[in-house]
Formats: sequence, structure tokens, C-alpha cells
Amino acid sequence: MTVLCRFDDGGTPRYGIVEGERVTAVTGGAFGPWEKTGPRLAAAGLRYLPPVIPPVFYAAGLNYQGHAERASVSASTASGHQVPERAEIGYRANSALTGHNSPIVRPADCDEPLVAEGELVAVIGPGGVPRHATREQAKAAIFGWTIGNDVSARGWQRADRTFWRSKNSDTFKPMGPYLVTADAVDPLSAMTSLAVDGAVAASFPTGDLLFDPQDFIVAMSRYITISAGDVIWLGTDETACVVPGQAISITIDGLGTLSNPVTEEKLINE
Amino acid sequence: MTVLCRFDDGGTPRYGIVEGERVTAVTGGAFGPWEKTGPRLAAAGLRYLPPVIPPVFYAAGLNYQGHAERASVSASTASGHQVPERAEIGYRANSALTGHNSPIVRPADCDEPLVAEGELVAVIGPGGVPRHATREQAKAAIFGWTIGNDVSARGWQRADRTFWRSKNSDTFKPMGPYLVTADAVDPLSAMTSLAVDGAVAASFPTGDLLFDPQDFIVAMSRYITISAGDVIWLGTDETACVVPGQAISITIDGLGTLSNPVTEEKLINE
Repeated sequence: MTVLCRFDDGGTPRYGIVEGERVTAVTGGAFGPWEKTGPRLAAAGLRYLPPVIPPVFYAAGLNYQGHAERASVSASTASGHQVPERAEIGYRANSALTGHNSPIVRPADCDEPLVAEGELVAVIGPGGVPRHATREQAKAAIFGWTIGNDVSARGWQRADRTFWRSKNSDTFKPMGPYLVTADAVDPLSAMTSLAVDGAVAASFPTGDLLFDPQDFIVAMSRYITISAGDVIWLGTDETACVVPGQAISITIDGLGTLSNPVTEEKLINE
Repeated sequence: MTVLCRFDDGGTPRYGIVEGERVTAVTGGAFGPWEKTGPRLAAAGLRYLPPVIPPVFYAAGLNYQGHAERASVSASTASGHQVPERAEIGYRANSALTGHNSPIVRPADCDEPLVAEGELVAVIGPGGVPRHATREQAKAAIFGWTIGNDVSARGWQRADRTFWRSKNSDTFKPMGPYLVTADAVDPLSAMTSLAVDGAVAASFPTGDLLFDPQDFIVAMSRYITISAGDVIWLGTDETACVVPGQAISITIDGLGTLSNPVTEEKLINE
């Protein structure tokens, strides 16, 4: 098992291998083989970046029974929601990505709490996925795992035709802190928990998915070429509300903790 | 005015300047300044690539009064459609992009005609767009224009929760043939036409948009950082149905003609 992070080294993004409280910069990018270069750095002092910038950013959306049922009850638009019967993937935008410890900035004209959704993220490896993949090929294509926070503004989510600002405003997609290789970790048997200012607000078994990563990859590969570095966010069960001034942390056992303070956009000419 | 194309030069993508029937490879990427290198090539012999691979691929969806009204009438799902009242952007996936002259491949299990949607595409320039842009800043941020074909499988579009396979199957997003700089062309005052096997099937004034590019950019920039090379597909009015064996061409005066044959996926073990 290798635990990688991606960090800002004076303006240059670098990958590093994480060992305890120390990080050593490496060559070899996200997929290795890695060769250590430079000194061991204090992990706490780094500016973390999203572990990958995906060619395509996939997101399952509703993928837990409880979350889908609650979403159906609370939906106030004509479109409503239903518990999905098939593995149908959705999309998010790279422009919304941010790293561990960076602020989630609530837009100036958003006056509701933001909803944090803690998600397991599969990262596709260097060979991509063959078209019409088998479940075995789908499993082999998963290079590693990370954590995503699918931050949402529910008022906009209900009112808008698309997820453009409700889910894709700048900084609404924290991802990280690490990219953990798939060889010695099984996050589907771990717990996901959400904590606000350090107090656990919700937790759920990560593996209680309606459709697992292989279901999605097999279905997608019938129509779509999935490439190296693509990410698949697998949905959330429980959520937590946060307001500016608070901090939200998502923990998945074995993958670390993705933490982000919530701040408020200040308009210059306000 | 500069007319650029991007083409496959023995495995390496290159930009070229198009002059009549000839193309000369250039340095300088999409945004220049360009310096010609190498011989003049026959435009007809090139393998065209999408003129840019956008960091984020935006698409307006319903953005013409007539198309939105027809979509509302034909919608058979609970979600329905409505004529949009605000400039709300959507997304498409880079994995679906293909170039001029490359085939649109209908998936093996898709048994309906494909619907071609001819769209004007705005390409954002090297400076990106400032957050909270004015209309003037939005206009200045448009580096150039190209053509997109938002190929859709309507049965899947109606049946699925998302546009994953109805609009984002491999090859469903032809873009090109050129990137035409914005300095001496006004596609909003031009016509868009769709032709099947060379016979015009539909045409409409490109500028009859519900929301123009500046409307979208201004609205998006309140929440989203729009970057160099991002593309904004602006929607279609009329459409045309095509089946394997036919060819679909989209023409916007001043931007050229984007042509693609339609073929059928052949499964190897069929």
C-alpha cells in the first residue's frame, strides 16, 4: 500500500509519499513507479491539492437507499427523485475541485447552510478501462481511492434546471487528502463519518451502496471510454449541514480525513 | 481573423493555420502568437481533432424558444422540460468529443435514429474570465468560435436519470472543424444549417438564442472560475435525425462545416 498526496511546492504541483507525519516528494506522478527526491517535509505544513485532476469527473449522485429515499421525500420540484434502479453515472466539474484544508467558500448570495456529502472516490489507473469491461477488468482498473465532499446548496439544487451552482460553485468539491493505492485497503468494508468542528454528525457503512464501483464501471464502459485519472465519486448516505465559521471533516477508515473550513465570499465592492 | 485547426500529425496533435485548401502547422497552440513551421498540407488529407480539449465542457442545453417548446411537448418523463427563464449552464464530457470527419458511432444496443443538434460554441481565451465579470469582460474573454454537434439518443435521454449515455457516449460530441478567432466574425448574425447526406434538413438564425454567450458567462462567473480553453456550447433550435450509413453536416456561416459519418458499433464477439 502506498499513500500519496499532491501538494503545492512553491507553485509547482508535486506528488509525495506520506509516511506518518512526513511527506517526501517523488517522481513518477500519480501512478508511479515512484522515486523519492528531496527532503522529508512536515505533512502539517503542506498546501494540499486534489490528488488528481481527472480528465472526466464522474459522480454517482443518489447511491444509498436511505439517502435516495430521504431525497425523494424532500424534493419539491416536478422532477422529484426516485431510488435509482440502474447504475447511471452523472458528472461534476473540475473547476469546483479544491484540496484538503482549503476553504469551502459559500457564495455571497447563498444564504442557506451548505450540505456536506461524504463520498468514497475510485481513481482509475494508467491503463484506463477497456470498453465492455468485465467485473474483473473493472476491479483491476481501480488504481486507488480517495475521499470527496460533494458540497451542495440544496435551495439552488431544487430551484435550478442543472447542478451548475448548487454543486459546481468554486471550492464545492474538496477531494483528498490522499490517493491510497488499492492493493492493501478495502474502503467498502470501512465506515464513512462526517464531523462538524470535530464532533461526529453522521456515519454510515461505506459499502452500503446501491451500486458498487464495478457496477458503474461495467455499465459505463458499454458506451464510454474511461481513462487514466478519471474519478468516480460514489455517493453519500448521511449528510451534515455547515455554515461559515465551521469546519467539515470526512473520514473513511484507511483513507484518512478530508478537512475543510467553511468561509464566506466577500465581494470587493461591498 | 485567423482560422485554426488541430490535427493528428502521426500521433502528435498539432495546430495549423487554414488558408483555403491548405493547412500550415504552427507553434503557439490554440492562442498564439503563431509561427508557421513545416510545409503546406492538403486540408482534405488531414485527420482533424477537436480544436480544443476543454478543462471544463459547458453546454447550455435548451436555449432556443422553439426547441424548448418542442422538447416540453415531447417529454414523456415526470421531469418534463420548460422554457428556461434563466441562463443555467449544463455540462458534457470530454470523453465524448471527436473531430471533423470522424465517425459518430451508434452503440450496439441503441436501435433508434440519433438526433443531431447543431450548436455554436464559444471558446474562452488565455486569460480566462474574471469572477463577477461584466458583459464587456465576458465578450472580451471569448477568443473564438467553433461548431458542435450535440448528438443525442432521445430514448435514453427520456429513460435515464442523467445524460450519461444519451449525450455522452463515445463520439457523440463532434466539435470543429476550425477554431475561428473572434476578431472578424460574428456568428450570432449568421445562419446555422444541418444537412443529411448533403441535403439541408433544417436551418435557423444562430442568434435567436434565449440567452447569449455573455448572459451565460456573466451568470456563471458569479460562482465559477471559467478558464482558458473552456468551451460553451450554446444550444440548438432545429435538429435532424440520422442513422448509420448517413452523414451529418453542420454549417455556421464563417465557421465552416462540421461533417461526420454515422456508423454502427460492431461487437467483436457478435
